[in-house]
Amino acid sequence: MKRTHPGLLRNILATNVRRFRMARGLSQQDFALEIEMDRTYYGGVERGERNVSVDNIERIANGLGISPDLLFREAD
Amino acid sequence: MKRTHPGLLRNILATNVRRFRMARGLSQQDFALEIEMDRTYYGGVERGERNVSVDNIERIANGLGISPDLLFREAD
Repeated sequence: MKRTHPGLLRNILATNVRRFRMARGLSQQDFALEIEMDRTYYGGVERGERNVSVDNIERIANGLGISPDLLFREAD
Repeated sequence: MKRTHPGLLRNILATNVRRFRMARGLSQQDFALEIEMDRTYYGGVERGERNVSVDNIERIANGLGISPDLLFREAD
């Protein structure tokens, strides 16, 4: 099991959120609007700058239509 | 993809954290101490009462020695 270094999980989450959002063909602005999340805050999530909470992770995963655990898997 | 209802993810996380912690044979107190997390706060995580942040999810997963995505999978 690869041990994540503090802060690494934010980057894994950021990379995955961006990847799934782009796969849906949505801009950050459109997606943030769709899930009723502040656009600036959401931009920070995709830059790995936000210490995102589980409730917001749930909202993002639901908006992306994916199972939340997929947001925490490292790309192979 | 099962859509989680707001707050459901906290319960999934709580159930998994408890399961993995008990599998390591540790009490809440011992585990909270080990990962340098406030014991009362940690108890709230296992009761699904805390809107846990990604940094603390990372700390818990590292302490359990598991990949963080396992904490977000629903039990079959």
